[in-house]
Amino acid sequence: MALTKELERIAKLIEDRLDALLRPEPAASGQARLIEAMRYAALGGGKRLRPFLLIESARLFGVAEEDALDAGVALECVHCYSLVHDDLPSMDDDTVRRGRPTAHIAFGEATAILAGDALLTLAFGILSRPSTHRDAGVRAELIGLLAEAAGVHGMAGGQALDLAAEGQRLGPMEVAKMQAMKTGALFTFACGAGAALGRADAVARGALAAYASAFGQAFQLADDLLDAKGDAAAMGKAAAKDAGRGKATLVALLGIDAARARLDALVDDAEAALVAFGKRGATLKEAARFVAARRA
Amino acid sequence: MALTKELERIAKLIEDRLDALLRPEPAASGQARLIEAMRYAALGGGKRLRPFLLIESARLFGVAEEDALDAGVALECVHCYSLVHDDLPSMDDDTVRRGRPTAHIAFGEATAILAGDALLTLAFGILSRPSTHRDAGVRAELIGLLAEAAGVHGMAGGQALDLAAEGQRLGPMEVAKMQAMKTGALFTFACGAGAALGRADAVARGALAAYASAFGQAFQLADDLLDAKGDAAAMGKAAAKDAGRGKATLVALLGIDAARARLDALVDDAEAALVAFGKRGATLKEAARFVAARRA
Repeated sequence: MALTKELERIAKLIEDRLDALLRPEPAASGQARLIEAMRYAALGGGKRLRPFLLIESARLFGVAEEDALDAGVALECVHCYSLVHDDLPSMDDDTVRRGRPTAHIAFGEATAILAGDALLTLAFGILSRPSTHRDAGVRAELIGLLAEAAGVHGMAGGQALDLAAEGQRLGPMEVAKMQAMKTGALFTFACGAGAALGRADAVARGALAAYASAFGQAFQLADDLLDAKGDAAAMGKAAAKDAGRGKATLVALLGIDAARARLDALVDDAEAALVAFGKRGATLKEAARFVAARRA
Repeated sequence: MALTKELERIAKLIEDRLDALLRPEPAASGQARLIEAMRYAALGGGKRLRPFLLIESARLFGVAEEDALDAGVALECVHCYSLVHDDLPSMDDDTVRRGRPTAHIAFGEATAILAGDALLTLAFGILSRPSTHRDAGVRAELIGLLAEAAGVHGMAGGQALDLAAEGQRLGPMEVAKMQAMKTGALFTFACGAGAALGRADAVARGALAAYASAFGQAFQLADDLLDAKGDAAAMGKAAAKDAGRGKATLVALLGIDAARARLDALVDDAEAALVAFGKRGATLKEAARFVAARRA
Protein backbone atom coordinates (compact mmCIF):
# COMPACT_ATOMS: atom_id res chain seq x y z
CA MET A 1 0.00 0.00 0.00
CA ALA A 2 1.51 3.29 -1.15
CA LEU A 3 0.34 5.20 1.92
CA THR A 4 2.18 2.90 4.33
CA LYS A 5 5.43 3.51 2.46
CA GLU A 6 4.81 7.26 2.43
CA LEU A 7 4.03 7.27 6.16
CA GLU A 8 7.24 5.37 6.80
CA ARG A 9 9.24 7.77 4.66
CA ILE A 10 7.91 10.85 6.50
CA ALA A 11 8.33 9.12 9.87
CA LYS A 12 11.99 8.59 9.02
CA LEU A 13 12.43 12.28 8.16
CA ILE A 14 10.85 13.29 11.47
CA GLU A 15 12.89 10.76 13.43
CA ASP A 16 16.15 11.97 11.87
CA ARG A 17 15.32 15.62 12.53
CA LEU A 18 14.38 14.92 16.16
CA ASP A 19 17.59 12.94 16.54
CA ALA A 20 19.59 15.90 15.23
CA LEU A 21 17.77 18.41 17.46
CA LEU A 22 18.15 16.33 20.62
CA ARG A 23 21.88 15.67 20.56
CA PRO A 24 23.09 13.59 23.47
CA GLU A 25 25.50 15.46 25.73
CA PRO A 26 28.59 14.17 27.55
CA ALA A 27 27.43 12.45 30.73
CA ALA A 28 29.40 14.95 32.81
CA SER A 29 27.30 17.85 31.54
CA GLY A 30 24.59 17.04 34.06
CA GLN A 31 21.78 17.67 31.62
CA ALA A 32 22.76 14.41 29.94
CA ARG A 33 20.09 12.42 31.74
CA LEU A 34 17.36 14.92 30.95
CA ILE A 35 18.28 14.90 27.27
CA GLU A 36 18.42 11.11 27.35
CA ALA A 37 14.86 11.08 28.74
CA MET A 38 13.72 13.52 26.04
CA ARG A 39 15.26 11.29 23.39
CA TYR A 40 13.62 8.22 24.95
CA ALA A 41 10.25 9.95 24.82
CA ALA A 42 10.60 11.40 21.34
CA LEU A 43 12.63 8.87 19.34
CA GLY A 44 12.28 5.28 18.27
CA GLY A 45 8.60 4.89 17.78
CA GLY A 46 5.33 6.28 16.69
CA LYS A 47 3.77 6.52 13.29
CA ARG A 48 4.36 10.31 13.24
CA LEU A 49 0.80 10.62 11.99
CA ARG A 50 0.45 14.26 13.11
CA PRO A 51 3.51 15.56 11.27
CA PHE A 52 2.38 13.49 8.29
CA LEU A 53 -0.96 15.29 8.24
CA LEU A 54 0.80 18.63 8.64
CA ILE A 55 3.17 17.99 5.75
CA GLU A 56 0.42 16.62 3.51
CA SER A 57 -1.89 19.54 4.34
CA ALA A 58 0.86 22.00 3.47
CA ARG A 59 1.53 20.10 0.23
CA LEU A 60 -2.04 20.84 -0.90
CA PHE A 61 -0.89 24.46 -1.25
CA GLY A 62 2.38 23.72 -2.95
CA VAL A 63 4.60 23.86 0.17
CA ALA A 64 7.65 21.62 -0.21
CA GLU A 65 7.93 19.03 2.53
CA GLU A 66 11.29 20.34 3.73
CA ASP A 67 9.56 23.67 4.40
CA ALA A 68 6.93 21.97 6.58
CA LEU A 69 9.24 19.50 8.30
CA ASP A 70 10.26 21.53 11.35
CA ALA A 71 6.68 22.55 12.10
CA GLY A 72 5.91 18.82 12.03
CA VAL A 73 8.81 18.13 14.38
CA ALA A 74 7.51 20.76 16.81
CA LEU A 75 4.06 19.15 16.71
CA GLU A 76 5.56 15.73 17.40
CA CYS A 77 7.44 17.16 20.41
CA VAL A 78 4.12 18.30 21.86
CA HIS A 79 2.53 14.93 21.18
CA CYS A 80 5.42 13.11 22.87
CA TYR A 81 5.37 15.44 25.87
CA SER A 82 1.65 14.75 26.30
CA LEU A 83 2.23 10.99 26.29
CA VAL A 84 4.93 11.29 28.98
CA HIS A 85 2.76 13.41 31.26
CA ASP A 86 -0.43 11.41 30.61
CA ASP A 87 1.40 8.19 31.56
CA LEU A 88 2.48 9.54 34.98
CA PRO A 89 1.30 7.71 38.13
CA SER A 90 -0.97 10.59 39.14
CA MET A 91 -2.54 10.66 35.65
CA ASP A 92 -3.21 7.42 33.72
CA ASP A 93 -0.53 5.46 35.60
CA ASP A 94 0.66 3.53 32.57
CA THR A 95 3.83 1.49 32.75
CA VAL A 96 4.14 0.36 29.12
CA ARG A 97 3.99 2.41 25.93
CA ARG A 98 4.91 1.22 22.44
CA GLY A 99 6.09 -2.00 24.03
CA ARG A 100 8.65 -0.25 26.26
CA PRO A 101 8.56 0.98 29.87
CA THR A 102 7.03 4.45 30.04
CA ALA A 103 9.41 7.36 30.63
CA HIS A 104 8.77 7.63 34.37
CA ILE A 105 9.43 3.92 34.80
CA ALA A 106 12.67 4.20 32.85
CA PHE A 107 13.93 7.53 34.27
CA GLY A 108 11.95 8.24 37.43
CA GLU A 109 9.02 10.56 37.83
CA ALA A 110 10.88 13.85 38.30
CA THR A 111 12.98 13.41 35.16
CA ALA A 112 9.91 12.34 33.19
CA ILE A 113 8.01 15.47 34.23
CA LEU A 114 10.98 17.65 33.29
CA ALA A 115 11.47 15.83 29.98
CA GLY A 116 7.84 16.55 29.12
CA ASP A 117 8.21 20.18 30.15
CA ALA A 118 11.38 20.53 28.09
CA LEU A 119 9.82 18.90 25.00
CA LEU A 120 6.85 21.27 25.18
CA THR A 121 9.24 24.21 25.52
CA LEU A 122 11.39 22.95 22.66
CA ALA A 123 8.36 22.78 20.39
CA PHE A 124 7.76 26.52 20.72
CA GLY A 125 11.48 27.19 20.36
CA ILE A 126 11.55 25.30 17.07
CA LEU A 127 8.54 27.20 15.75
CA SER A 128 10.20 30.53 16.61
CA ARG A 129 13.25 29.89 14.41
CA PRO A 130 13.65 31.58 11.03
CA SER A 131 14.75 28.20 9.63
CA THR A 132 11.22 26.88 10.31
CA HIS A 133 9.67 29.59 8.12
CA ARG A 134 11.21 32.73 6.70
CA ASP A 135 8.15 34.86 7.51
CA ALA A 136 7.93 35.74 11.22
CA GLY A 137 4.20 36.37 10.81
CA VAL A 138 3.68 32.74 9.79
CA ARG A 139 5.87 31.56 12.70
CA ALA A 140 3.88 33.63 15.19
CA GLU A 141 0.65 32.28 13.71
CA LEU A 142 1.85 28.68 14.08
CA ILE A 143 2.83 29.36 17.70
CA GLY A 144 -0.56 30.86 18.47
CA LEU A 145 -2.33 27.89 16.89
CA LEU A 146 -0.16 25.39 18.79
CA ALA A 147 -0.67 27.16 22.13
CA GLU A 148 -4.42 27.09 21.52
CA ALA A 149 -4.37 23.40 20.55
CA ALA A 150 -2.19 22.30 23.48
CA GLY A 151 -3.58 24.54 26.21
CA VAL A 152 -6.46 24.72 28.60
CA HIS A 153 -9.06 24.89 25.82
CA GLY A 154 -7.36 22.07 23.90
CA MET A 155 -5.26 19.08 24.86
CA ALA A 156 -4.51 19.97 28.51
CA GLY A 157 -8.16 20.84 29.10
CA GLY A 158 -9.20 17.56 27.49
CA GLN A 159 -6.89 15.60 29.76
CA ALA A 160 -8.43 17.43 32.74
CA LEU A 161 -11.90 16.44 31.52
CA ASP A 162 -10.73 12.86 31.06
CA LEU A 163 -9.34 12.68 34.61
CA ALA A 164 -12.49 14.26 36.05
CA ALA A 165 -14.61 11.72 34.17
CA GLU A 166 -13.13 8.64 35.85
CA GLY A 167 -15.87 6.85 37.70
CA GLN A 168 -18.47 9.28 36.29
CA ARG A 169 -21.08 8.38 33.68
CA LEU A 170 -20.56 10.67 30.69
CA GLY A 171 -22.97 10.83 27.78
CA PRO A 172 -21.85 10.51 24.14
CA MET A 173 -21.77 14.30 23.68
CA GLU A 174 -19.53 14.78 26.70
CA VAL A 175 -17.18 12.03 25.63
CA ALA A 176 -17.01 13.50 22.13
CA LYS A 177 -16.16 16.93 23.53
CA MET A 178 -13.47 15.54 25.79
CA GLN A 179 -11.90 13.58 22.93
CA ALA A 180 -12.10 16.51 20.53
CA MET A 181 -9.98 18.48 23.00
CA LYS A 182 -7.66 15.75 24.24
CA THR A 183 -6.94 14.03 20.93
CA GLY A 184 -8.59 16.09 18.23
CA ALA A 185 -6.89 19.41 18.95
CA LEU A 186 -3.46 18.29 17.75
CA PHE A 187 -4.93 16.88 14.52
CA THR A 188 -6.70 20.20 14.03
CA PHE A 189 -3.39 21.95 14.59
CA ALA A 190 -1.68 19.63 12.08
CA CYS A 191 -4.05 20.58 9.29
CA GLY A 192 -4.31 24.22 10.37
CA ALA A 193 -0.54 24.56 10.44
CA GLY A 194 -0.32 23.10 6.93
CA ALA A 195 -2.87 25.68 5.80
CA ALA A 196 -0.98 28.48 7.58
CA LEU A 197 2.30 27.43 5.96
CA GLY A 198 0.49 27.43 2.61
CA ARG A 199 -1.19 30.80 3.31
CA ALA A 200 -4.48 29.14 2.50
CA ASP A 201 -7.68 31.16 2.19
CA ALA A 202 -10.54 30.90 4.67
CA VAL A 203 -12.51 28.40 2.56
CA ALA A 204 -9.58 26.02 2.28
CA ARG A 205 -8.84 26.40 6.00
CA GLY A 206 -12.46 25.57 6.81
CA ALA A 207 -12.36 22.48 4.62
CA LEU A 208 -9.17 21.27 6.30
CA ALA A 209 -10.61 21.96 9.75
CA ALA A 210 -13.62 19.80 8.87
CA TYR A 211 -11.30 17.07 7.61
CA ALA A 212 -9.17 17.26 10.78
CA SER A 213 -12.23 17.00 13.00
CA ALA A 214 -13.54 13.90 11.21
CA PHE A 215 -10.04 12.42 11.07
CA GLY A 216 -9.47 12.94 14.79
CA GLN A 217 -12.78 11.34 15.71
CA ALA A 218 -12.11 8.42 13.38
CA PHE A 219 -8.66 7.96 14.87
CA GLN A 220 -10.06 7.86 18.41
CA LEU A 221 -12.94 5.57 17.53
CA ALA A 222 -10.65 3.10 15.75
CA ASP A 223 -8.40 3.18 18.83
CA ASP A 224 -11.32 2.50 21.12
CA LEU A 225 -12.56 -0.33 18.89
CA LEU A 226 -9.09 -1.86 18.95
CA ASP A 227 -8.99 -1.45 22.70
CA ALA A 228 -12.43 -3.00 23.09
CA LYS A 229 -11.15 -6.10 21.35
CA GLY A 230 -8.37 -6.19 23.91
CA ASP A 231 -5.76 -6.66 21.27
CA ALA A 232 -2.72 -5.93 23.41
CA ALA A 233 -0.23 -6.84 20.70
CA ALA A 234 -1.62 -4.34 18.20
CA MET A 235 -1.90 -1.55 20.74
CA GLY A 236 1.45 -1.99 22.43
CA LYS A 237 -0.06 -1.10 25.75
CA ALA A 238 -1.97 -2.81 28.51
CA ALA A 239 -5.15 -3.94 26.81
CA ALA A 240 -8.68 -3.10 27.75
CA LYS A 241 -7.26 -0.97 30.56
CA ASP A 242 -9.45 2.01 29.80
CA ALA A 243 -12.58 -0.05 30.16
CA GLY A 244 -11.30 -1.68 33.34
CA ARG A 245 -10.74 1.76 34.85
CA GLY A 246 -14.25 2.82 33.90
CA LYS A 247 -13.01 5.34 31.32
CA ALA A 248 -15.74 6.50 29.05
CA THR A 249 -15.39 5.62 25.38
CA LEU A 250 -17.91 5.96 22.58
CA VAL A 251 -17.58 2.24 21.92
CA ALA A 252 -18.77 1.49 25.45
CA LEU A 253 -21.63 3.95 25.07
CA LEU A 254 -22.78 3.08 21.54
CA GLY A 255 -21.87 -0.59 21.28
CA ILE A 256 -19.42 -2.06 18.78
CA ASP A 257 -21.76 -2.21 15.78
CA ALA A 258 -22.94 1.39 16.07
CA ALA A 259 -19.36 2.52 16.67
CA ARG A 260 -18.25 0.79 13.47
CA ALA A 261 -21.06 2.44 11.51
CA ARG A 262 -20.06 5.81 12.98
CA LEU A 263 -16.45 5.19 12.02
CA ASP A 264 -17.46 4.55 8.42
CA ALA A 265 -19.51 7.76 8.40
CA LEU A 266 -16.55 9.74 9.76
CA VAL A 267 -14.30 8.47 6.98
CA ASP A 268 -16.95 9.58 4.49
CA ASP A 269 -17.05 13.00 6.19
CA ALA A 270 -13.26 13.29 6.03
CA GLU A 271 -13.24 12.45 2.33
CA ALA A 272 -16.13 14.79 1.58
CA ALA A 273 -14.35 17.68 3.28
CA LEU A 274 -11.53 17.39 0.75
CA VAL A 275 -13.66 17.41 -2.39
CA ALA A 276 -12.61 20.92 -3.41
CA PHE A 277 -8.97 19.82 -3.53
CA GLY A 278 -9.70 17.24 -6.23
CA LYS A 279 -6.92 14.77 -6.93
CA ARG A 280 -4.51 16.64 -4.67
CA GLY A 281 -6.54 15.42 -1.68
CA ALA A 282 -5.96 11.74 -2.49
CA THR A 283 -3.24 11.14 0.12
CA LEU A 284 -5.21 12.73 2.96
CA LYS A 285 -8.30 10.73 1.96
CA GLU A 286 -6.27 7.56 2.00
CA ALA A 287 -4.89 8.53 5.42
CA ALA A 288 -8.44 8.73 6.81
CA ARG A 289 -9.23 5.27 5.44
CA PHE A 290 -5.93 4.04 6.86
CA VAL A 291 -6.58 5.10 10.46
CA ALA A 292 -10.09 3.69 10.32
CA ALA A 293 -8.79 0.35 9.04
CA ARG A 294 -6.72 -0.12 12.21
CA ARG A 295 -9.88 -1.20 14.01
CA ALA A 296 -9.71 -4.47 12.07
CA MET B 1 11.18 53.60 49.66
CA ALA B 2 10.17 54.56 46.14
CA LEU B 3 11.16 51.19 44.66
CA THR B 4 8.83 49.26 46.92
CA LYS B 5 5.90 51.39 45.77
CA GLU B 6 6.90 50.97 42.13
CA LEU B 7 7.23 47.20 42.57
CA GLU B 8 3.78 47.09 44.12
CA ARG B 9 2.32 49.18 41.32
CA ILE B 10 3.74 46.91 38.61
CA ALA B 11 2.76 43.79 40.58
CA LYS B 12 -0.82 45.05 40.60
CA LEU B 13 -0.76 45.57 36.82
CA ILE B 14 0.52 42.01 36.32
CA GLU B 15 -1.99 40.56 38.75
CA ASP B 16 -4.91 42.31 37.03
CA ARG B 17 -3.78 41.20 33.59
CA LEU B 18 -3.34 37.58 34.73
CA ASP B 19 -6.76 37.74 36.35
CA ALA B 20 -8.27 38.94 33.07
CA LEU B 21 -6.48 36.28 31.00
CA LEU B 22 -7.43 33.42 33.32
CA ARG B 23 -11.17 33.94 33.52
CA PRO B 24 -12.94 31.41 35.74
CA GLU B 25 -15.37 29.23 33.81
CA PRO B 26 -18.77 27.89 34.88
CA ALA B 27 -18.17 24.82 37.03
CA ALA B 28 -20.09 22.69 34.53
CA SER B 29 -17.57 23.38 31.80
CA GLY B 30 -15.27 20.71 33.16
CA GLN B 31 -12.15 22.77 32.63
CA ALA B 32 -13.26 24.90 35.57
CA ARG B 33 -11.06 23.03 38.02
CA LEU B 34 -8.00 23.26 35.80
CA ILE B 35 -8.48 27.00 35.36
CA GLU B 36 -9.03 27.34 39.10
CA ALA B 37 -5.69 25.61 39.68
CA MET B 38 -3.97 27.89 37.14
CA ARG B 39 -5.42 30.91 38.92
CA TYR B 40 -4.32 29.53 42.28
CA ALA B 41 -0.79 29.13 40.97
CA ALA B 42 -0.59 32.45 39.16
CA LEU B 43 -2.63 34.89 41.22
CA GLY B 44 -2.54 36.30 44.72
CA GLY B 45 1.11 36.46 45.48
CA GLY B 46 4.62 37.02 44.38
CA LYS B 47 6.59 40.20 44.01
CA ARG B 48 6.43 39.92 40.18
CA LEU B 49 10.11 40.74 40.16
CA ARG B 50 10.72 39.20 36.73
CA PRO B 51 8.02 41.21 34.90
CA PHE B 52 9.27 44.26 36.79
CA LEU B 53 12.77 43.74 35.40
CA LEU B 54 11.33 43.19 31.93
CA ILE B 55 9.27 46.36 32.01
CA GLU B 56 12.10 48.44 33.47
CA SER B 57 14.60 47.05 30.93
CA ALA B 58 12.24 47.95 28.09
CA ARG B 59 11.75 51.40 29.59
CA LEU B 60 15.49 52.06 29.15
CA PHE B 61 14.78 52.13 25.42
CA GLY B 62 11.66 54.25 25.61
CA VAL B 63 9.13 51.39 25.51
CA ALA B 64 5.93 52.33 27.33
CA GLU B 65 5.06 49.92 30.12
CA GLU B 66 1.73 48.97 28.56
CA ASP B 67 3.70 47.75 25.52
CA ALA B 68 5.86 45.51 27.72
CA LEU B 69 3.13 44.32 30.06
CA ASP B 70 1.98 41.20 28.22
CA ALA B 71 5.54 39.97 27.70
CA GLY B 72 5.92 40.35 31.48
CA VAL B 73 2.71 38.41 32.04
CA ALA B 74 3.99 35.59 29.82
CA LEU B 75 7.22 35.49 31.81
CA GLU B 76 5.32 35.34 35.08
CA CYS B 77 3.25 32.41 33.74
CA VAL B 78 6.48 30.50 33.12
CA HIS B 79 7.79 31.37 36.58
CA CYS B 80 4.55 30.20 38.21
CA TYR B 81 4.49 26.97 36.19
CA SER B 82 8.04 26.24 37.35
CA LEU B 83 7.07 26.72 41.00
CA VAL B 84 4.13 24.31 40.65
CA HIS B 85 6.23 21.60 39.02
CA ASP B 86 9.24 22.12 41.31
CA ASP B 87 7.00 21.71 44.36
CA LEU B 88 5.67 18.30 43.22
CA PRO B 89 6.27 15.28 45.47
CA SER B 90 8.71 13.72 42.99
CA MET B 91 10.66 17.00 42.78
CA ASP B 92 11.22 19.17 45.86
CA ASP B 93 8.14 17.82 47.68
CA ASP B 94 7.12 21.15 49.15
CA THR B 95 3.74 21.51 50.81
CA VAL B 96 3.74 25.25 51.56
CA ARG B 97 4.46 28.17 49.24
CA ARG B 98 3.84 31.86 49.99
CA GLY B 99 2.14 30.75 53.18
CA ARG B 100 -0.44 28.62 51.35
CA PRO B 101 -0.65 24.92 50.50
CA THR B 102 1.22 24.21 47.26
CA ALA B 103 -0.91 23.57 44.16
CA HIS B 104 -0.67 19.78 44.32
CA ILE B 105 -1.76 19.82 47.97
CA ALA B 106 -4.71 22.06 47.12
CA PHE B 107 -5.76 20.44 43.82
CA GLY B 108 -4.09 17.02 43.65
CA GLU B 109 -1.02 16.06 41.73
CA ALA B 110 -2.57 15.45 38.31
CA THR B 111 -4.32 18.80 38.20
CA ALA B 112 -1.17 20.56 39.43
CA ILE B 113 0.92 19.00 36.65
CA LEU B 114 -1.69 19.99 34.06
CA ALA B 115 -1.99 23.50 35.48
CA GLY B 116 1.78 23.91 35.11
CA ASP B 117 1.68 22.54 31.57
CA ALA B 118 -1.18 24.87 30.66
CA LEU B 119 0.55 27.94 32.16
CA LEU B 120 3.71 27.18 30.19
CA THR B 121 1.63 26.79 27.04
CA LEU B 122 -0.31 29.97 27.76
CA ALA B 123 2.95 31.93 28.06
CA PHE B 124 3.88 31.14 24.47
CA GLY B 125 0.33 31.79 23.34
CA ILE B 126 0.44 35.27 24.89
CA LEU B 127 3.77 36.05 23.23
CA SER B 128 2.39 35.02 19.83
CA ARG B 129 -0.44 37.58 19.89
CA PRO B 130 -0.27 40.79 17.85
CA SER B 131 -1.54 42.64 20.95
CA THR B 132 1.72 41.75 22.72
CA HIS B 133 3.79 43.46 20.02
CA ARG B 134 2.77 44.67 16.60
CA ASP B 135 5.92 43.33 14.92
CA ALA B 136 5.79 39.55 14.43
CA GLY B 137 9.58 39.50 14.20
CA VAL B 138 9.85 40.83 17.76
CA ARG B 139 7.22 38.33 18.95
CA ALA B 140 9.11 35.43 17.37
CA GLU B 141 12.35 36.70 18.94
CA LEU B 142 10.73 36.84 22.39
CA ILE B 143 9.41 33.30 21.94
CA GLY B 144 12.83 32.02 20.93
CA LEU B 145 14.45 33.71 23.93
CA LEU B 146 11.83 32.33 26.33
CA ALA B 147 12.11 28.80 24.96
CA GLU B 148 15.88 28.99 25.40
CA ALA B 149 15.57 30.35 28.96
CA ALA B 150 12.95 27.82 30.07
CA GLY B 151 14.24 24.74 28.27
CA VAL B 152 16.83 22.03 28.64
CA HIS B 153 19.73 24.49 28.52
CA GLY B 154 17.98 26.87 30.93
CA MET B 155 15.49 26.46 33.73
CA ALA B 156 14.41 22.85 33.11
CA GLY B 157 18.04 21.79 32.73
CA GLY B 158 18.91 23.63 35.94
CA GLN B 159 16.17 21.83 37.83
CA ALA B 160 17.51 18.52 36.48
CA LEU B 161 21.00 19.46 37.75
CA ASP B 162 19.52 20.42 41.11
CA LEU B 163 17.72 17.10 41.46
CA ALA B 164 20.81 15.18 40.40
CA ALA B 165 22.87 17.08 42.99
CA GLU B 166 20.87 15.90 46.00
CA GLY B 167 23.19 13.97 48.28
CA GLN B 168 26.18 14.83 46.04
CA ARG B 169 28.96 17.20 46.98
CA LEU B 170 29.03 19.97 44.39
CA GLY B 171 31.77 22.58 44.23
CA PRO B 172 31.03 26.34 44.07
CA MET B 173 31.41 26.40 40.27
CA GLU B 174 28.92 23.60 39.80
CA VAL B 175 26.43 25.20 42.17
CA ALA B 176 26.81 28.52 40.36
CA LYS B 177 26.18 26.86 36.99
CA MET B 178 23.10 25.06 38.28
CA GLN B 179 21.69 28.25 39.76
CA ALA B 180 22.47 30.30 36.65
CA MET B 181 20.31 27.86 34.71
CA LYS B 182 17.59 27.18 37.24
CA THR B 183 17.07 30.71 38.55
CA GLY B 184 19.23 32.99 36.45
CA ALA B 185 17.82 32.09 33.03
CA LEU B 186 14.45 33.76 33.63
CA PHE B 187 16.14 36.96 34.88
CA THR B 188 18.28 36.90 31.76
CA PHE B 189 15.12 36.51 29.70
CA ALA B 190 13.48 39.41 31.55
CA CYS B 191 16.25 41.82 30.63
CA GLY B 192 16.78 40.31 27.16
CA ALA B 193 13.07 40.62 26.40
CA GLY B 194 13.11 44.27 27.47
CA ALA B 195 16.02 44.84 25.12
CA ALA B 196 14.26 42.99 22.30
CA LEU B 197 11.10 45.05 22.79
CA GLY B 198 13.29 48.16 22.68
CA ARG B 199 15.19 46.94 19.61
CA ALA B 200 18.38 47.56 21.56
CA ASP B 201 21.78 47.30 19.90
CA ALA B 202 24.29 44.59 20.73
CA VAL B 203 26.22 46.71 23.24
CA ALA B 204 23.10 47.56 25.24
CA ARG B 205 21.98 43.93 25.11
CA GLY B 206 25.36 42.83 26.43
CA ALA B 207 25.20 45.35 29.27
CA LEU B 208 21.73 44.15 30.27
CA ALA B 209 22.81 40.52 30.07
CA ALA B 210 25.68 41.29 32.48
CA TYR B 211 23.23 43.08 34.79
CA ALA B 212 20.80 40.16 34.66
CA SER B 213 23.53 37.66 35.47
CA ALA B 214 24.69 39.62 38.52
CA PHE B 215 21.10 40.29 39.58
CA GLY B 216 20.16 36.62 39.33
CA GLN B 217 23.15 35.53 41.39
CA ALA B 218 22.47 38.22 44.00
CA PHE B 219 18.82 37.16 44.17
CA GLN B 220 19.78 33.53 44.77
CA LEU B 221 22.49 34.33 47.29
CA ALA B 222 20.18 36.58 49.31
CA ASP B 223 17.61 33.78 49.24
CA ASP B 224 20.16 31.27 50.48
CA LEU B 225 21.33 33.65 53.21
CA LEU B 226 17.74 34.11 54.33
CA ASP B 227 17.25 30.37 54.24
CA ALA B 228 20.43 29.77 56.24
CA LYS B 229 19.04 31.96 58.97
CA GLY B 230 15.98 29.72 58.98
CA ASP B 231 13.66 32.65 58.87
CA ALA B 232 10.50 30.79 58.03
CA ALA B 233 8.24 33.80 58.35
CA ALA B 234 10.18 35.89 55.84
CA MET B 235 10.46 33.07 53.33
CA GLY B 236 6.92 31.78 53.57
CA LYS B 237 8.13 28.26 53.12
CA ALA B 238 9.50 25.52 55.28
CA ALA B 239 12.72 26.98 56.63
CA ALA B 240 16.18 25.59 56.31
CA LYS B 241 14.69 22.76 54.29
CA ASP B 242 17.25 22.92 51.51
CA ALA B 243 20.09 22.46 53.98
CA GLY B 244 18.26 19.63 55.70
CA ARG B 245 17.92 17.82 52.38
CA GLY B 246 21.60 18.29 51.66
CA LYS B 247 20.93 20.72 48.79
CA ALA B 248 24.03 22.55 47.75
CA THR B 249 24.01 26.32 48.25
CA LEU B 250 26.86 28.77 47.96
CA VAL B 251 26.21 29.85 51.54
CA ALA B 252 26.89 26.32 52.75
CA LEU B 253 30.05 26.13 50.61
CA LEU B 254 31.48 29.59 51.28
CA GLY B 255 30.22 30.34 54.79
CA ILE B 256 27.94 33.21 55.71
CA ASP B 257 30.57 35.96 55.84
CA ALA B 258 32.10 35.15 52.47
CA ALA B 259 28.60 34.82 50.98
CA ARG B 260 27.70 38.29 52.25
CA ALA B 261 30.87 39.76 50.75
CA ARG B 262 30.07 38.03 47.47
CA LEU B 263 26.55 39.44 47.54
CA ASP B 264 27.91 42.97 47.96
CA ALA B 265 30.27 42.42 45.03
CA LEU B 266 27.40 41.17 42.86
CA VAL B 267 25.37 44.29 43.57
CA ASP B 268 28.40 46.36 42.54
CA ASP B 269 28.65 44.30 39.35
CA ALA B 270 24.97 44.83 38.61
CA GLU B 271 25.28 48.58 39.08
CA ALA B 272 28.47 48.77 37.02
CA ALA B 273 26.82 46.96 34.12
CA LEU B 274 24.30 49.79 33.84
CA VAL B 275 26.77 52.67 33.78
CA ALA B 276 26.22 53.42 30.10
CA PHE B 277 22.52 54.04 30.74
CA GLY B 278 23.28 56.92 33.12
CA LYS B 279 20.35 58.14 35.17
CA ARG B 280 17.91 55.99 33.25
CA GLY B 281 19.43 52.94 34.98
CA ALA B 282 18.59 54.19 38.48
CA THR B 283 15.53 51.97 39.00
CA LEU B 284 17.30 48.79 37.92
CA LYS B 285 20.27 49.66 40.17
CA GLU B 286 17.93 50.17 43.07
CA ALA B 287 16.27 46.84 42.28
CA ALA B 288 19.63 45.06 42.63
CA ARG B 289 20.22 46.69 46.02
CA PHE B 290 16.67 45.78 46.99
CA VAL B 291 16.98 42.04 46.34
CA ALA B 292 20.32 41.95 48.14
CA ALA B 293 18.83 43.70 51.19
CA ARG B 294 16.35 40.84 51.68
CA ARG B 295 19.14 38.83 53.30
CA ALA B 296 18.85 41.09 56.32
